[in-house]
Amino acid sequence: MTHTSNYELLREVAFSDTDMAGLVHFPNYLRYVEDTEYSFLRSAGLDVILDAPEGKLGFPRTHIECDYAHPARYRDQLRIALYTTIVGGKTIEHRFQIYTGEKVVVRGLLTTACCRFLPDKDPYAIPIPDFIIDKLVAAGANQ
Amino acid sequence: MTHTSNYELLREVAFSDTDMAGLVHFPNYLRYVEDTEYSFLRSAGLDVILDAPEGKLGFPRTHIECDYAHPARYRDQLRIALYTTIVGGKTIEHRFQIYTGEKVVVRGLLTTACCRFLPDKDPYAIPIPDFIIDKLVAAGANQ
Amino acid sequence: MTHTSNYELLREVAFSDTDMAGLVHFPNYLRYVEDTEYSFLRSAGLDVILDAPEGKLGFPRTHIECDYAHPARYRDQLRIALYTTIVGGKTIEHRFQIYTGEKVVVRGLLTTACCRFLPDKDPYAIPIPDFIIDKLVAAGANQ
Amino acid sequence: MTHTSNYELLREVAFSDTDMAGLVHFPNYLRYVEDTEYSFLRSAGLDVILDAPEGKLGFPRTHIECDYAHPARYRDQLRIALYTTIVGGKTIEHRFQIYTGEKVVVRGLLTTACCRFLPDKDPYAIPIPDFIIDKLVAAGANQ
Repeated sequence: MTHTSNYELLREVAFSDTDMAGLVHFPNYLRYVEDTEYSFLRSAGLDVILDAPEGKLGFPRTHIECDYAHPARYRDQLRIALYTTIVGGKTIEHRFQIYTGEKVVVRGLLTTACCRFLPDKDPYAIPIPDFIIDKLVAAGANQ
Repeated sequence: MTHTSNYELLREVAFSDTDMAGLVHFPNYLRYVEDTEYSFLRSAGLDVILDAPEGKLGFPRTHIECDYAHPARYRDQLRIALYTTIVGGKTIEHRFQIYTGEKVVVRGLLTTACCRFLPDKDPYAIPIPDFIIDKLVAAGANQ
Repeated sequence: MTHTSNYELLREVAFSDTDMAGLVHFPNYLRYVEDTEYSFLRSAGLDVILDAPEGKLGFPRTHIECDYAHPARYRDQLRIALYTTIVGGKTIEHRFQIYTGEKVVVRGLLTTACCRFLPDKDPYAIPIPDFIIDKLVAAGANQ
Repeated sequence: MTHTSNYELLREVAFSDTDMAGLVHFPNYLRYVEDTEYSFLRSAGLDVILDAPEGKLGFPRTHIECDYAHPARYRDQLRIALYTTIVGGKTIEHRFQIYTGEKVVVRGLLTTACCRFLPDKDPYAIPIPDFIIDKLVAAGANQ
């Protein structure tokens, strides 16, 4: 991706993130990406779970994908870069690249929907409210 | 411990439970113990979170300890044995031993309190209701 | 997928697999899939890491994707179905579906390469040796 | 503990560290403590696994304990303070306290042994070599 990321997080690989092959265990990269996403949401004045008059709002994942290009190891200094696009007013696509130095470790996509959380009910998708779109765009998301 | 366990769970070590030293990463044993504890609670007709007229009840941990005697590895077949005692009407002590074959891997203690969970409030301890004590004792807990 | 799975694993959702939204935390499904994959490999007479004359062999992930269709919760009984295909002699594609009852929770793809692990070197891909292909096919993988 | 910590780490609670009770899942505090311990070792010029002429050295856990005083939640800013003592030339005791603000969340003890790691052998304890004791003491450990 040649365009500019809208958010970046630095993260050192913890010992507990590794497995017996000596490498970062593959689902753990998704925790790094989630931390980056949530940190971006907060930098935009939003949060993981938002109080709204009609009930809480959140952003459950609908799709994820990762291409593993290069293994990372304990103590590697990772940089997670996020490239966010709002698609069709209903979906937020966070493309990401995870680097050690200039080398890409993992690239992928995290897609979330804007969902209403009501007690004792599964979360259900709603159109992204304008105040959320405005804040995401102001923080650097594409539309 | 020479007395009889009140509950046992079998568990195979997963690849994701290991770390780069090739051994089970030490906090993961506590997940095995928690699974055993919750499975015991259910065998007693209880659950992790109980609905009660005055509000939900649960069993947050107040204390844990582990002595690591022998490392476990990927694919080891573990047996987690639980020795439960109700202490002073307020505390549940689950002593445990984790075995591979006849060898002890970890022994330790998980102490829980009976707590009320109310919305927007930290859980707070209450005396264990009689119906819970009766069910635990019927399922093999000491008193 | 209408064709038959070559392997299935049953798994109960653990308390530790959930997050504060009350649902299974999304990367944890990949642990379930990995456990299914490794269990399938072993049912085929293989293993996660294989000793071979020229050095150890393993199956690092090159690509994963998940579509999250329905959230799972604590104590849900999951069935993870695996549909394995050997592609081009170099890649193993495990398509998967995770069910509660008849409802699909997650469907996705886990792609692995056959790699040589030598000390102090990053793993590198090799053509899948015939003895591995034969065992995978005998265990139900497509080719 | 009134004496001064020899090392402190700051850590924000991640979403993935929580469970369906809305609190940090109890074994996760041990990951925070381990990160603090390893960061302290590195500040002392040591590391998790050390190359030595007779074979690799590491510090497997022999004992842990935690007293849970107050629950932590998503986004809490934690401070993990370490109080290290070398006991009898064979054991390293890291007492710890985890704070949010001035409030103690967890206090406990992590005890490690100095062990030799040889291939295809379980790690075994050895007396802590002088160069390690010297570095730990120079970095603030008690003896």
